[in-house]
Amino acid sequence: MKNRLPIDAKTGFDVNDDFERFAQRNEIYCRSEWDPEIASDAARKFFDGHYMPHARARKADGFGQRDYALRNASWHVTNVLRDLRRADDDRKEGFFDTFSCHAEGWDEPYPFDSPESGTANLRRAAESIGVGLMGVCEYDERWVYESRFSEKTKQDKPVDIPDDLPNVIVIGEPMDIGLTATVPSALSGSATGIGYTHDTVVLLTLSQYIRNLGYRAVASMNDSALAIPLAAQAGLGEIGRHSLLITKEYGPRLRLGKIFTDMPLLIDEPSNFGVRKFCEICQRCSSACPPKAIPASAPSRTPHSVSNLKGILKWTTIAEKCFRFWASQNSDCSICIRVCPYNRDFSRWHNRVWRRLAATPLRKFMLQIDVFFNKRGRMSSRNWWRS
Amino acid sequence: MKNRLPIDAKTGFDVNDDFERFAQRNEIYCRSEWDPEIASDAARKFFDGHYMPHARARKADGFGQRDYALRNASWHVTNVLRDLRRADDDRKEGFFDTFSCHAEGWDEPYPFDSPESGTANLRRAAESIGVGLMGVCEYDERWVYESRFSEKTKQDKPVDIPDDLPNVIVIGEPMDIGLTATVPSALSGSATGIGYTHDTVVLLTLSQYIRNLGYRAVASMNDSALAIPLAAQAGLGEIGRHSLLITKEYGPRLRLGKIFTDMPLLIDEPSNFGVRKFCEICQRCSSACPPKAIPASAPSRTPHSVSNLKGILKWTTIAEKCFRFWASQNSDCSICIRVCPYNRDFSRWHNRVWRRLAATPLRKFMLQIDVFFNKRGRMSSRNWWRS
Repeated sequence: MKNRLPIDAKTGFDVNDDFERFAQRNEIYCRSEWDPEIASDAARKFFDGHYMPHARARKADGFGQRDYALRNASWHVTNVLRDLRRADDDRKEGFFDTFSCHAEGWDEPYPFDSPESGTANLRRAAESIGVGLMGVCEYDERWVYESRFSEKTKQDKPVDIPDDLPNVIVIGEPMDIGLTATVPSALSGSATGIGYTHDTVVLLTLSQYIRNLGYRAVASMNDSALAIPLAAQAGLGEIGRHSLLITKEYGPRLRLGKIFTDMPLLIDEPSNFGVRKFCEICQRCSSACPPKAIPASAPSRTPHSVSNLKGILKWTTIAEKCFRFWASQNSDCSICIRVCPYNRDFSRWHNRVWRRLAATPLRKFMLQIDVFFNKRGRMSSRNWWRS
Repeated sequence: MKNRLPIDAKTGFDVNDDFERFAQRNEIYCRSEWDPEIASDAARKFFDGHYMPHARARKADGFGQRDYALRNASWHVTNVLRDLRRADDDRKEGFFDTFSCHAEGWDEPYPFDSPESGTANLRRAAESIGVGLMGVCEYDERWVYESRFSEKTKQDKPVDIPDDLPNVIVIGEPMDIGLTATVPSALSGSATGIGYTHDTVVLLTLSQYIRNLGYRAVASMNDSALAIPLAAQAGLGEIGRHSLLITKEYGPRLRLGKIFTDMPLLIDEPSNFGVRKFCEICQRCSSACPPKAIPASAPSRTPHSVSNLKGILKWTTIAEKCFRFWASQNSDCSICIRVCPYNRDFSRWHNRVWRRLAATPLRKFMLQIDVFFNKRGRMSSRNWWRS
């Protein structure tokens, strides 16, 4: 494996000799299952709380029974499809393992005239299925996990993505802007759950379409590979200070998925609309993060812990602080999404103008405008229900 | 069971003493499994064709491999969720049986102040989940199947909807207007498949939400009860000449689902926006139907066959002719949807004006305008892929 690739010049990734592929066991959710530093009663209760009998609703705004009821329901279809082979085959699909519930496809590849025509076809199909954003990059081993985590044995197991699938389709499904405004709340987790459910359905449908065309397609959500660098390489957006992808269409408000395939496709160019330079001067996420998990400092090569990538110059969050806050709240948190100046409704022209100007030397002024006009405070969940 | 109910004055249903509840075995798809009049090689191939190895793609526009590839992929998630207990328990969920893959809910009902407040809450949740249309009617035994069909034994089995669930939530999920324009084609069946997939996901999520609130909820799609009269009673729309529901929002272009529940809810009023009177003078669907399955005549009490409801004055299609055409095309048909004057994009103001005027004595003129300006011809599938 080469640590540096020509595409890095376009994404701005600065990878050096220390770089090592990420082992899934070091992901913070996996660590909560094996690492005494992370595993705790609160962490266990946080996960259990996604099932109604263990939800621990309380009187606080956004943490009542109807809030947990919607949050847990929003995950339901994702959970059913995730768990199809969980008990029998130790597969937690979409999270630890790729999806496997495909029907038999076709045995001869559909003869597209060119990758252009195949790509146009795929985009049309994706649009009709309801895919939010789609981009394509080349397979890049650097972002594929070195190993998977087995929920059953708590040990590593191999990543079984075939290495002869040259293309990666990356998709992004938007999260509800209104629900995200109520964070921190159990209610706001519904934006996450609905996003995952939509992501799961779209990934299964689109990968089945590719198989039906006669190509190979392996659908993957949070499992198997780091979605964010792949998304950046596929032109979906840039990486912000909060380590999340920021897209032109939905800002940081989306869930990602990917499909590894041998369908011949045009490769997209990484996009640059000024996020990196903007995040250099903006500290709204780092200031707003209650556990101070997002550093206000410049990008660095030093990982905070095994949960961070090694050997790459980047903004890096402190996963332990982040996750402990989730566990203490008994709900996932996305305050960094709520307060991000790119968390806007870009279907409105004035927000598109803001985005354009935020990519120019006026960026400092655009940040001031955002701070002045967008308090980005927490919306009361009661108000969300009433609205 | 009373044959006549006060609500009939509002829906225009004219039910008489001959009325009998419908037995699912007489539904045309079920008959293709047991009735020699309907079962045929073509019918079997039509169903098998929803799986890629049996798709029988041909050169004709709209029936190529990519068309079947998308059509079959669009059904995939529906199929997976439908078949969870098919082999073991003879359950074909969403089609012959209700959905059963619920997680445990809450054991105490959420104390809403009033049915108004519960309804507002449910509507807010439904909107965030992505429900297209929603209405509520009282449980009405007349439209519940007398018996279910067992795929395994080809015999009747009991309908196990508890009879102490007083409310029925009816939802409608829109079908893609562009895909519907390509009918007849295998491609157009993608609108059906995507509609069902969305319907399935939304039904499972919304009914889980109700269970999480502490109420009972049984989610049902094509199984267990006639969705169209329930939808009319719940105020979603009126029934057209083609026997399909016509809604203000999407015309006839939608899939229906329902949830039987004891959650206290406001009951909606049936809606009337002039469809019945318009259909009396319009014969676009009956003229365009290739097998002449839609009569041009006035509503009648005489069923054409066991596949029609008995003892109710209505427009009734000839299910045998309709289904044989499907089988002969190796694809479902919705020409009656494509050519319906209410098949419009009502997000556009001029279509809303048309709808308003079609409910007045100007209806004949509005029909002429529709015939003159909207050829409603078949869109070439090649053009759909290119668009």
